[in-house]
Amino acid sequence: MLGAGLDFSGGMRGAAFGPRALRANDVYLPSVTVGLPHAHTRVDALEELVICDYGDVAVDFESTHRSIEPVRGLVREVAETGAIPFIVGGDHALMYPDAAALADVYGKGKVGIIHFDAHYDAARFGLGHHLTHGTPVRKLIEQGHVSGNNFVQVGLRGYMPDDEDLAWMRDQGFRYHFMAEVEKKGWAHVMERAISEAAEGTDYLFVSLDIDVIDPAYAPGTGTPEPNGLTPRELFPLLRRLGAETNLVGVELVELNPLVDPTYVTPLVANRCAREILTGIAMRKKGITEPHYLHPDAIDHGQT
Amino acid sequence: MLGAGLDFSGGMRGAAFGPRALRANDVYLPSVTVGLPHAHTRVDALEELVICDYGDVAVDFESTHRSIEPVRGLVREVAETGAIPFIVGGDHALMYPDAAALADVYGKGKVGIIHFDAHYDAARFGLGHHLTHGTPVRKLIEQGHVSGNNFVQVGLRGYMPDDEDLAWMRDQGFRYHFMAEVEKKGWAHVMERAISEAAEGTDYLFVSLDIDVIDPAYAPGTGTPEPNGLTPRELFPLLRRLGAETNLVGVELVELNPLVDPTYVTPLVANRCAREILTGIAMRKKGITEPHYLHPDAIDHGQT
Amino acid sequence: MLGAGLDFSGGMRGAAFGPRALRANDVYLPSVTVGLPHAHTRVDALEELVICDYGDVAVDFESTHRSIEPVRGLVREVAETGAIPFIVGGDHALMYPDAAALADVYGKGKVGIIHFDAHYDAARFGLGHHLTHGTPVRKLIEQGHVSGNNFVQVGLRGYMPDDEDLAWMRDQGFRYHFMAEVEKKGWAHVMERAISEAAEGTDYLFVSLDIDVIDPAYAPGTGTPEPNGLTPRELFPLLRRLGAETNLVGVELVELNPLVDPTYVTPLVANRCAREILTGIAMRKKGITEPHYLHPDAIDHGQT
Amino acid sequence: MLGAGLDFSGGMRGAAFGPRALRANDVYLPSVTVGLPHAHTRVDALEELVICDYGDVAVDFESTHRSIEPVRGLVREVAETGAIPFIVGGDHALMYPDAAALADVYGKGKVGIIHFDAHYDAARFGLGHHLTHGTPVRKLIEQGHVSGNNFVQVGLRGYMPDDEDLAWMRDQGFRYHFMAEVEKKGWAHVMERAISEAAEGTDYLFVSLDIDVIDPAYAPGTGTPEPNGLTPRELFPLLRRLGAETNLVGVELVELNPLVDPTYVTPLVANRCAREILTGIAMRKKGITEPHYLHPDAIDHGQT
Amino acid sequence: MLGAGLDFSGGMRGAAFGPRALRANDVYLPSVTVGLPHAHTRVDALEELVICDYGDVAVDFESTHRSIEPVRGLVREVAETGAIPFIVGGDHALMYPDAAALADVYGKGKVGIIHFDAHYDAARFGLGHHLTHGTPVRKLIEQGHVSGNNFVQVGLRGYMPDDEDLAWMRDQGFRYHFMAEVEKKGWAHVMERAISEAAEGTDYLFVSLDIDVIDPAYAPGTGTPEPNGLTPRELFPLLRRLGAETNLVGVELVELNPLVDPTYVTPLVANRCAREILTGIAMRKKGITEPHYLHPDAIDHGQT
Amino acid sequence: MLGAGLDFSGGMRGAAFGPRALRANDVYLPSVTVGLPHAHTRVDALEELVICDYGDVAVDFESTHRSIEPVRGLVREVAETGAIPFIVGGDHALMYPDAAALADVYGKGKVGIIHFDAHYDAARFGLGHHLTHGTPVRKLIEQGHVSGNNFVQVGLRGYMPDDEDLAWMRDQGFRYHFMAEVEKKGWAHVMERAISEAAEGTDYLFVSLDIDVIDPAYAPGTGTPEPNGLTPRELFPLLRRLGAETNLVGVELVELNPLVDPTYVTPLVANRCAREILTGIAMRKKGITEPHYLHPDAIDHGQT
Repeated sequence: MLGAGLDFSGGMRGAAFGPRALRANDVYLPSVTVGLPHAHTRVDALEELVICDYGDVAVDFESTHRSIEPVRGLVREVAETGAIPFIVGGDHALMYPDAAALADVYGKGKVGIIHFDAHYDAARFGLGHHLTHGTPVRKLIEQGHVSGNNFVQVGLRGYMPDDEDLAWMRDQGFRYHFMAEVEKKGWAHVMERAISEAAEGTDYLFVSLDIDVIDPAYAPGTGTPEPNGLTPRELFPLLRRLGAETNLVGVELVELNPLVDPTYVTPLVANRCAREILTGIAMRKKGITEPHYLHPDAIDHGQT
Repeated sequence: MLGAGLDFSGGMRGAAFGPRALRANDVYLPSVTVGLPHAHTRVDALEELVICDYGDVAVDFESTHRSIEPVRGLVREVAETGAIPFIVGGDHALMYPDAAALADVYGKGKVGIIHFDAHYDAARFGLGHHLTHGTPVRKLIEQGHVSGNNFVQVGLRGYMPDDEDLAWMRDQGFRYHFMAEVEKKGWAHVMERAISEAAEGTDYLFVSLDIDVIDPAYAPGTGTPEPNGLTPRELFPLLRRLGAETNLVGVELVELNPLVDPTYVTPLVANRCAREILTGIAMRKKGITEPHYLHPDAIDHGQT
Repeated sequence: MLGAGLDFSGGMRGAAFGPRALRANDVYLPSVTVGLPHAHTRVDALEELVICDYGDVAVDFESTHRSIEPVRGLVREVAETGAIPFIVGGDHALMYPDAAALADVYGKGKVGIIHFDAHYDAARFGLGHHLTHGTPVRKLIEQGHVSGNNFVQVGLRGYMPDDEDLAWMRDQGFRYHFMAEVEKKGWAHVMERAISEAAEGTDYLFVSLDIDVIDPAYAPGTGTPEPNGLTPRELFPLLRRLGAETNLVGVELVELNPLVDPTYVTPLVANRCAREILTGIAMRKKGITEPHYLHPDAIDHGQT
Repeated sequence: MLGAGLDFSGGMRGAAFGPRALRANDVYLPSVTVGLPHAHTRVDALEELVICDYGDVAVDFESTHRSIEPVRGLVREVAETGAIPFIVGGDHALMYPDAAALADVYGKGKVGIIHFDAHYDAARFGLGHHLTHGTPVRKLIEQGHVSGNNFVQVGLRGYMPDDEDLAWMRDQGFRYHFMAEVEKKGWAHVMERAISEAAEGTDYLFVSLDIDVIDPAYAPGTGTPEPNGLTPRELFPLLRRLGAETNLVGVELVELNPLVDPTYVTPLVANRCAREILTGIAMRKKGITEPHYLHPDAIDHGQT
Repeated sequence: MLGAGLDFSGGMRGAAFGPRALRANDVYLPSVTVGLPHAHTRVDALEELVICDYGDVAVDFESTHRSIEPVRGLVREVAETGAIPFIVGGDHALMYPDAAALADVYGKGKVGIIHFDAHYDAARFGLGHHLTHGTPVRKLIEQGHVSGNNFVQVGLRGYMPDDEDLAWMRDQGFRYHFMAEVEKKGWAHVMERAISEAAEGTDYLFVSLDIDVIDPAYAPGTGTPEPNGLTPRELFPLLRRLGAETNLVGVELVELNPLVDPTYVTPLVANRCAREILTGIAMRKKGITEPHYLHPDAIDHGQT
Repeated sequence: MLGAGLDFSGGMRGAAFGPRALRANDVYLPSVTVGLPHAHTRVDALEELVICDYGDVAVDFESTHRSIEPVRGLVREVAETGAIPFIVGGDHALMYPDAAALADVYGKGKVGIIHFDAHYDAARFGLGHHLTHGTPVRKLIEQGHVSGNNFVQVGLRGYMPDDEDLAWMRDQGFRYHFMAEVEKKGWAHVMERAISEAAEGTDYLFVSLDIDVIDPAYAPGTGTPEPNGLTPRELFPLLRRLGAETNLVGVELVELNPLVDPTYVTPLVANRCAREILTGIAMRKKGITEPHYLHPDAIDHGQT
């Protein structure tokens, strides 16, 4: 795990505290989850995997621009060892150095991205800057680090993109899943499509998880909240399956802002998002790739 | 938009701050939604429609009774221009002057009402008064402003009405949809019924939206919360469709009480409710009336 | 109603305030629900049933061990009159004296339990003690108060049990429903199974409701919250049906901790959980046992 | 104690919950103070005095005007028995019926008032009404219930009164102590003056305590807060001395609004204000009238 | 009034919302203070002065460096008209462009500064940058905009500066008043010294008010809080006197961060700080320069 | 530093989180205080002293009784090395094992105690137990670990002790300073007396600091708050002087409960209390014992 406290969100600031909040999750909550298996898959990620906290990147707290290289360098350093970097933001501008670092290691265009977010983050510019928390997607595509048709977006909603940006996304071959698809066709449909798209045509996958993809009732601690988001019940299985069914080479969890959540809820949900991904990766290591895996012991004994 | 800060709710007071909270929605939240299209319909209500803030009605902060005429007069003034008054409360007693004003303009019995609420608001009396936030429906029917069979209620739950009031509602021909219908038959069923009932038999429609129809997990900032309410995912499409498929001549959004919500969430959800209705009205203006409209560009490019 | 303020949760303490918070529910909320029927069943539990507040048990605020006998004695005292004790916790260690008292009155192995919880609470030990909020289930089984195959668990999730405890649960014949079953097969399926399992093979039923079975977005006020829980829409009908379709002889509602919820929401939801169970019991008294009972008057008048 | 939940403050509403909050003070706080003596006077008011909770007045929740007579009648009823009515508001319009009732019993002009408040509450009118939470003082004087030179005000600050109202106050012979006097001459000076003015020239005294006289750092739960107020250390001795050194015939504690205080602090401070007054009354009953009474046992034993 | 939302505090971010919070102060609070005189001076600043809201500076939300010139330019533009710019931050790096702009207009070394702050803000560098919220003082001195012996600091406390920075401050001739002086000699002493130092030796004065000079009990909404600060009762008279007794040519109010204050208190206190300064300026305009001015009408009528 | 999370307060529970909250103080606050000198004494405790975090005692979370020996053993272990144990609670029952351990090492009756608290904590019993957070003082005296005339109490207030307990305290020769003394004679007087009493007649001193000695406006995060407490400005110099002027052999800081403080304020104030004591100890080590020491460099340069 790498902390990277970029904090230039256009909305309510505080994302710089994301890494601390995730690490401190157990400050006010019991540590009952340590060393125990995931309930229904019976997989214990903390036992199966070797997990290491790599500290915080020395970001420049005044400049996204000057923070890019330190982040990119450290993520590359981790990835080059064969480990899976798990970056905790910080704002979403991180997607640019994070994914570029993976391209440095695995090759340009070799790594696909599945991008969970309420927002498309592919704007032409943001408040006078080319690289902000609203623009990393475009920069990654334009520089060839990622191909548009290996870009899968889930959870878009609200009032964007403008027509020009949407046309550009279509031209690049993006696969995007607005919440309208969930409303209309149900989550099962969207989850299956996202999994198959994420797995196809790329050798490696990077998961970019903006906590605001979740509905603000479940995760109010974020800078640019948007109602009508995903619920944990929808998101958790998909996160688990991405770990189990695809070749993950990196994860980022961004825009967690504890300052605007007066409860403990958002850091807890973020912690569980991370645990679900880790559980999936451990499943893959154990050879479990069945999409809806339920360990036999987790099935009601009385049913048979 | 008209503000009307009546604040005589029997529950936790503070609804007088509703109009300020809705206007101030962008005080702490980014204004990313201004001038951009609704994500999946690609309709930009702020561009299609002419929207005007008409200020606040001079309500009497000590008397619902004396506030009726100022509200009714101002709503009538707006409606007479052919504009759609959008009244932001304030407590739900507003429904009486709001709907009566529309009857003044469009004719008695000509305007139907679709009423979103956890409560039926048709009590015989409330704490010794004939017109309170719990009684406007009865007064509207008794005075002939609205016909009972043009009254559609969605979201009723909790512990009411008493048998006498329910019998009266049935005698008037109300169509009501308790949350039990949603639990039992699903939201899709209730939404289709509500839309068809709202459209039938009236020339014009008034939408009365009490924010407490939404579950308190999503919108805790209201005076008489009741668990087991609608989610934004359920409500938003119906609001959009009411704008697009019916002949809306007025809207009220009431019982938003920012004092009892320690987060930013309720004003944000109220803002989005308003945006969804406006988007629907703009869709109608553009000739889009398909119930589940999804712009072709908002469909996953990679699907074909 | 009996209050029992045990407060030894491993997580965030404060459960001792549960009884006060439930009783004080109307301190800040309107009492509109008093003396009115349940909306769609039209059953008024407060009128049908004789309800009596029996005060608080004199628990030892320093010792679960020394609190057992006072709780067990008082619950037995109530149950011996033929009344249904409704215990409000307090932490979940209460399950041991509560269910043991019922076994004292109705006979060992005669009372089944339906146990709503995010956690299995059948650990071999907890922080060096045999009886804590995490172990009551095991003690009840080992002492023969309840048979394993009359133990139905709903809502398990997160990161537990360990393999040894799960094997023990299976050996005892537990019927458990992890949230994974809800995710995969839907709530309707799980609800029907739980109802049929709860009713089969036992003469009497005890409902043990840990408020953390509900998702923390809906009920954050609890000591060991776990995301991905039940919603009120799922839980309420099952609570109602347990009252109406089974032979309830006792209820406990535990782990309500108002100190960690900055809003009014958790006590309100707990109040409604209690009301739903009471409504179910009143339904049974009136002879209504139809699973999805909807009073004819609560059906949309306009539908016919 | 009488509750009177008027709630027409011009500011943040919620004062209607004042009586409930004061009564519920022990809901979340320990009851260690019951049946124990005041620390340094060694007087136990709960033992010396007969205290009776007289319930709530049936105020009209829509009209200050129609609430006057019920309040005045009930206060009169209590005062006629010779008891000291202690009214808990509710908004400050209560001062009119409260003090008028005392004049009814003790004679017009016979009862002086010491009035703790950030605001002067003697405006000519308030938002179109002659009797609001900002005008009761004027009405009492104009109707002759109280003489201006028996009116002592403590704690005025902020941005008022306008010149016309201030001139009227001077003409009536008011004695007022702006916070500027405290800033300039110190609290000891103001306290001595207030005590001597309160005691002089009237047979009886009524204490009207608006919780907003206290600085919002100490008591944020009120509708029209104003920084730079009194601290508990300043206010408590004066409250105690008013009980001990003057002939109190009534007390009101108003503008406690728990809805706008996210902590437990304001109801706790209000509880202690009441306790200090009661302690003073008990001191008087025991014959203790020394201004700075400190029981010998409360002096450091080691000092002699 | 100029808003300048720089937000690069090293602590909890959110200062960008300062201008909005100050402007929105009346969103949730009553506007009783508009158009009324200051209580005990009887001076109505809103009537005496011409006050104009000049909007927000277009700061670069990613760079203090690039925000300097826009701020400096706009402040200069205002000051050149002879008006007194009142800048609302935003973080304290603003002190550099704000004071430099005044030096541009009034001449280098002609404008003294009285600087209220818990921190000295004259560090050699801050997290790798020469201009941050912790360094503006040094840059102003080094570039000659302000002379060290015209720099008066009030409220320093906590754990700083290091010896090297303190030596530099002494070498420059700073006059600083640590809270220890207040503890030891009392506020009256410190206030008199600060006033006389601020007035001596400079033609013009700039007031730089960091809200964290106030104790966090009174103003928790700031990014780097430090206990043991000033109270409003101490600060308000000094602010008023600076307006009345010195030749003010500019004011800044910085580090107001509403995101970390769950109450309304900090924006309210900030609003009153501004009002006290404006009252002082209006006093000067009316010719009132008596240090402890108390209007005769504000003195207790009954005293004579 | 030793953490000891006892949590059996009679009031609002949560003190078990005290150690975590104090350690996590920098989670949301900047670490600007690390490695920098105390502002006006110019002493850097972190540099002068060797400070070591000794982890948490394995308390029994179900029993004060069984937690005594582990705490006493570990404190003794630390004290035997000659180090000064600094215990962070947890509830105040800790005073018994903490002070007894020091008596084990330094001899019975050799260690005096200065006890900061709103409550006297010398009750005969508490809710049926001889050792609770309200009784440790009595047990220490009765067992001869401490002599009554070496027991100095500061800050007592509210509604206690009862007459019997107060008589016992006097008989033991306690020196106690009720807040009434502060009200009447001023803090300077009480501080001088407390310092001289603490230093006289004992070889060693133990400081027992209950955070509730501070007023709840400054430190709301505690289980049994009592208004009218000390301010940081009063407490900090005394803490510093105890370190500098007496022979401290142990410190405990108890009853910090972050669960009931919705802001960051209480842990921050607790952190600063600890820092002031450490600064005092470092002053003593450097030979500075002047009561009101102010480093010459911290005096206003411009004054001479």
